[in-house]
Amino acid sequence: MTQTLDLAVIPGDGIGPEVTAEALKVLRKALDGEDVEVKETHYSLGAQHWLTTGETLPDDVLDDLRGRDAILFGAVGAAPGDTRIPSGLIERELLLKLRFTLDHCVNLRPSRLYAGVGSPLAAPGEIDFIVVREGTEGPYVGNGGALRTGTPHEIATEVSVNTAYGVERVVRDAFRRASQRLRKKVTLVHKHNVLVHAGHLWKRTVEAVAAEFPEVEHDYLHVDAATIFLVTDPGRFDVIVTDNLFGDILTDLAGAVTGGIGLAASGNINLDRAAPSMFEPVHGSAPDIAGQQKADPTAAILSAALLLDHVGQGDAVFAAAAARIEAAVKADVEFRIVGEQRTTAHIGDAIAARL
Amino acid sequence: MTQTLDLAVIPGDGIGPEVTAEALKVLRKALDGEDVEVKETHYSLGAQHWLTTGETLPDDVLDDLRGRDAILFGAVGAAPGDTRIPSGLIERELLLKLRFTLDHCVNLRPSRLYAGVGSPLAAPGEIDFIVVREGTEGPYVGNGGALRTGTPHEIATEVSVNTAYGVERVVRDAFRRASQRLRKKVTLVHKHNVLVHAGHLWKRTVEAVAAEFPEVEHDYLHVDAATIFLVTDPGRFDVIVTDNLFGDILTDLAGAVTGGIGLAASGNINLDRAAPSMFEPVHGSAPDIAGQQKADPTAAILSAALLLDHVGQGDAVFAAAAARIEAAVKADVEFRIVGEQRTTAHIGDAIAARL
Ligand SMILES: CC(C)[C@H](C(=O)O)[C@@H](O)C(=O)O
Ligand SMILES: CC(C)[C@H](C(=O)O)[C@@H](O)C(=O)O
Repeated sequence: MTQTLDLAVIPGDGIGPEVTAEALKVLRKALDGEDVEVKETHYSLGAQHWLTTGETLPDDVLDDLRGRDAILFGAVGAAPGDTRIPSGLIERELLLKLRFTLDHCVNLRPSRLYAGVGSPLAAPGEIDFIVVREGTEGPYVGNGGALRTGTPHEIATEVSVNTAYGVERVVRDAFRRASQRLRKKVTLVHKHNVLVHAGHLWKRTVEAVAAEFPEVEHDYLHVDAATIFLVTDPGRFDVIVTDNLFGDILTDLAGAVTGGIGLAASGNINLDRAAPSMFEPVHGSAPDIAGQQKADPTAAILSAALLLDHVGQGDAVFAAAAARIEAAVKADVEFRIVGEQRTTAHIGDAIAARL
Repeated sequence: MTQTLDLAVIPGDGIGPEVTAEALKVLRKALDGEDVEVKETHYSLGAQHWLTTGETLPDDVLDDLRGRDAILFGAVGAAPGDTRIPSGLIERELLLKLRFTLDHCVNLRPSRLYAGVGSPLAAPGEIDFIVVREGTEGPYVGNGGALRTGTPHEIATEVSVNTAYGVERVVRDAFRRASQRLRKKVTLVHKHNVLVHAGHLWKRTVEAVAAEFPEVEHDYLHVDAATIFLVTDPGRFDVIVTDNLFGDILTDLAGAVTGGIGLAASGNINLDRAAPSMFEPVHGSAPDIAGQQKADPTAAILSAALLLDHVGQGDAVFAAAAARIEAAVKADVEFRIVGEQRTTAHIGDAIAARL
């Protein structure tokens, strides 16, 4: 019986369309010969779309997205100097709105230093960890305000909101993932000596969930100390679980130490599978190199592998296709020649050819 | 006419007393032969003191501190496993209370990669920047709360409070410092695309203050991007201005890329000079190596130089003494022998001898 994989594709702005095209190319090739029909519905959304239409994410589009199996997302965002677009609007009203509305509570970000990839660290060692970043709470809830704006008496607040419900599900997911890994270790990152209330909720939750996973070790690091370890001993990490803001910071830094965010993939996961999960490279839209075939599509391609792994729910066909993509990427990056300039499509082709 | 430098000394816990002793040794030596009388009043405060007395920072001690010219602070904090002390209590009720009560609005943290010091980065380049971290607002205000604690319905919040008054004074200080430096460049670090209200206050303030300093350039980075640059191109930074939490994270990372927080000094500055400023190494109390003369006192010694520079207010005697300490540290670290084990006192003696 033929299965259908009903994909929503949001290429977005800047280099988004170029890297997404390669991700789709590789995804299709990885499923070649399998009894899976891949259906793509493309959505025009992002800064460019807003400039033309004034729309960020209309309700009917959101409803339509809800019916798909998964979303492949490129990148969105205006050029830094473009003053026609209110700053941060697209990020909040499109990207964050998707994450929040579709309840993408786990923002999953693997970090691996591939053989052959240069790290800015002199002695990086082996790096292979995942960050389970909370995706729907914390300082990202948009719960701030301002009073007397623009006067010398202005006061501006930002409220980080953390719930037992929201924290527990991501902590349990982190332990579950750790239990399936070799080293079986969870590190909670927070700043509980200062952010007492949120911090204690996270700490207590980790202690409680840890009891359900006796085979998984856990420890704790303040976020400042965690950034130190990311450059002095990144090999110490296996699974990091942390809040939305700390996760944002740590995963960009992790991307940098593993050779650049051109390789960093991510999944925004709806754990209940009540809505489609969304897969996107960690990098942004890089307007400066857009349309020039200069972007590295590897992060987008690895995001497609995360997508297959997630939608397959352990189905052998999908799991094998995801594993093949990862192996092809591994082989490709291992033999990349320093200084060699390959186009975006050329890299996509090379990875597809290795499948 | 003899001047008196009336110092409060808070050695604290762990390695605090050892490194502070060396800082005082070097400070005294640097003023040797000058017409300055150095008076020291030592205060017993910290985790150990709390265990003995139940006191964190009594009002009469705080009043007494207010009368001093400056505070030299070692490090405080219980051993991680010590469950007798409520976690974070000493940090909040002593360290943060001092910073907040004495209105230490600028937390000044220089980052310099000295010749001869190993960086974890393969190609660190020249690193010489300062971070002007806001010290009395932001997510550090202790303005959170929790509801239904310990139940599945718990909600915990943390409120970041930012005021025009608080932001403007540190931004102006950052521009003032930048205007006296060679490269004259300020980088604001925030996350204004997500933390809109606080972020816009910071951005608007930087634009307004920048107009007063036409000779100073400025740019902006999201905090996640800033961590990337700290490992891929730290040389791009001259003066970073940022909030309390981002500043905490960035300065630990900066300490790591410049060879370890054993070298990172800081000043908690009261800009009005209405209360004493406080100078402390960025590192913690490191209970695991306490009392063994294994700690590097360099960060404490450099903090003493920042102290002299600040209390002297440009007075040539103090400025020269501060410069001599910095030069002595520079010379000492340049000729450190890899793998050589010097005691804490030995390093202090060596630096003092170079003055
Ligand atoms: C664009 C921005 C809102 C986003 C975030 O902060 O989550 C990005 O930095 C990321 O990490 O995906
Ligand atoms: C101990 C802690 C409260 C403190 C902070 O977060 O400011 C420390 O990390 C620092 O950077 O001085």
